Amino acid sequence: MRLLDEANIKDIALGAAVLGSGGGSNPYIGMLVAREAIRRYGPVELVTLDELDDEDLVVPAAGMGAPVVGVEKLPAGDDLLRAFEALGKYIGRRPRATMSIEAGGMNSIRPIYLAARLGIPVVDCDGMGRAFPEIQQTVLTAAGISASPFVMSDERGNVLLMDAVSNKWVETFARSCVIHMGAVGVIALYSATVRQLKAAAIQGTTTLAESIGRTLRTARRNERNPVDALRRAVGGYLVFRGKISDVDRRVREGFAKGNARMDGTGDFAGQALLLEFQNEHLVVRVDGEFAATTPDLIVVLDSETAQPITTEALRYGMRVAVIAIPCASQWREPAALALVHPRYFGYDVDYVPVEDRFG
Amino acid sequence: MRLLDEANIKDIALGAAVLGSGGGSNPYIGMLVAREAIRRYGPVELVTLDELDDEDLVVPAAGMGAPVVGVEKLPAGDDLLRAFEALGKYIGRRPRATMSIEAGGMNSIRPIYLAARLGIPVVDCDGMGRAFPEIQQTVLTAAGISASPFVMSDERGNVLLMDAVSNKWVETFARSCVIHMGAVGVIALYSATVRQLKAAAIQGTTTLAESIGRTLRTARRNERNPVDALRRAVGGYLVFRGKISDVDRRVREGFAKGNARMDGTGDFAGQALLLEFQNEHLVVRVDGEFAATTPDLIVVLDSETAQPITTEALRYGMRVAVIAIPCASQWREPAALALVHPRYFGYDVDYVPVEDRFG
Repeated sequence: MRLLDEANIKDIALGAAVLGSGGGSNPYIGMLVAREAIRRYGPVELVTLDELDDEDLVVPAAGMGAPVVGVEKLPAGDDLLRAFEALGKYIGRRPRATMSIEAGGMNSIRPIYLAARLGIPVVDCDGMGRAFPEIQQTVLTAAGISASPFVMSDERGNVLLMDAVSNKWVETFARSCVIHMGAVGVIALYSATVRQLKAAAIQGTTTLAESIGRTLRTARRNERNPVDALRRAVGGYLVFRGKISDVDRRVREGFAKGNARMDGTGDFAGQALLLEFQNEHLVVRVDGEFAATTPDLIVVLDSETAQPITTEALRYGMRVAVIAIPCASQWREPAALALVHPRYFGYDVDYVPVEDRFG
Repeated sequence: MRLLDEANIKDIALGAAVLGSGGGSNPYIGMLVAREAIRRYGPVELVTLDELDDEDLVVPAAGMGAPVVGVEKLPAGDDLLRAFEALGKYIGRRPRATMSIEAGGMNSIRPIYLAARLGIPVVDCDGMGRAFPEIQQTVLTAAGISASPFVMSDERGNVLLMDAVSNKWVETFARSCVIHMGAVGVIALYSATVRQLKAAAIQGTTTLAESIGRTLRTARRNERNPVDALRRAVGGYLVFRGKISDVDRRVREGFAKGNARMDGTGDFAGQALLLEFQNEHLVVRVDGEFAATTPDLIVVLDSETAQPITTEALRYGMRVAVIAIPCASQWREPAALALVHPRYFGYDVDYVPVEDRFG
């Protein structure tokens, strides 16, 4: 167990935005909200699964919707508390702790905010090791853990509780409701015992995010090349350097969908990149050839500061570096891979691990 | 208290299809399902509100969706039981009885089926005195009774529990989910105490449906004019006689929406009628002039047998009579009328009570 304070939160938010692969919403807003909660309620305990009892109940908490809307809709926090408590009440057990369901600017931070308010620990693990757009896209689904009972709430006070026959059905119902919430809702889901999570969750994600954030911060302060420092710290590969020449982004069916085009610069001069996303970056093509695909992480960074750029922040003219990072090994098992395969998203291409492409 | 047996059910289903104003789905299918339940579990107690304790909890049960789909999807019943029991569990109280939320072929019968299976009484009242397409369109809403907690289930076993900030929000969320259920779900909602219902519900609806059904059956057997017998029994007005010349019907946004055109026959020769519906008949125009509108009941009957024809059964070439019946007086209070006014459905016309048009 260790305590997370304001400085830790800042590093976690920054590092989680890298792991978010374009998703997980604005890390800065999440950081502000969590920092306020820690100032008010005190530091938050970060614990490992081994520090809890096997039968303890853990309930992850997150936001859902199209991040492009999240920029304008500031999270209040009461809705998250409401969703979390409604789930505990429905199960009839008090959750011992919370955790992230995905790594991403906001969704790595929301559980810390919740933990601060409730005085419970956050577990150092998550269900993706990155961010993915749909509810069922977790290694927990592949391990047979149910996303139900699932609760979604909004800032008006609506509470929707779903007990669905599959995690994909939760996605279907929740997605159609979140559209009516203005494309932003908060959720509590995938309640599980510590014993289940030990067998299924991706462990150490919060600590990893924090260490990525610290690496970035240090590299910037020491005036070293932050993109390269980050790439080495995460074991990633440089896919491209260039200037964004076009961004097409729409909120459609409860997601932020679209693509960005880049013209190469430096070593990549004369090459063209196409990045496609659905909340998160899904595939990237250089001169028409796939260069990296889901489930590996595709991260767009400011070429100077290595600040991760989420999909809603992509703008014409930005100078960026694109790196690809091997996904957590759990995603490469067949049952998990099927949930997030390029073909699931409509791309007719085999999955080739990024280290086989670049290594 | 009296017991409902197979013969009663048949009359109720028939009479409720008249009150359904084109909605409430196929009365014959509902009758079959309820008859089977009564054969298996025994007759059902029909009680008045006065026969229960003021603090008893009553939970209405119904189907929701586009009736045109209901024709193909036979109700199994387990889903209704699941929805009803999930609501009781969520509230933490065992419901003392059930009731109809609307009058209509299936939705007058579903509560009887449920009561047979659970061995609880059905209350002789409902929330509309007819059928309307949307969840919040009840006199209960006008009286401040919440449709939440609301449960929707389907034949797969999905359970959606909604605690929304208004009855209109329940409609919004539930409608978007029912589309994914194949446009048919079963629901439990508007749980209320007997005391609340005494002040708000429309009483005697089941008995009224049964008496309409009996009138129709007797008139047919005695070879009297059944359309006229029915019209007199319900205090209605003959709007039109004619032949259906066109039907345009689509399942859209979780509703069966459309219209039917008729060419006048007999006294109405040379006139043309346009009937518009959204699950239920909403307005009828003769030669372009409004002849009857919501919330008054617009009923299409087979011109010979006076069999009520629901919107999904309207077919080219059918010879029909159209009658209009004054709605329950509660609907004419401002708060209730606003929920179901022609303008709510997009018709730019004042509501004129049908007896002022024809009386």
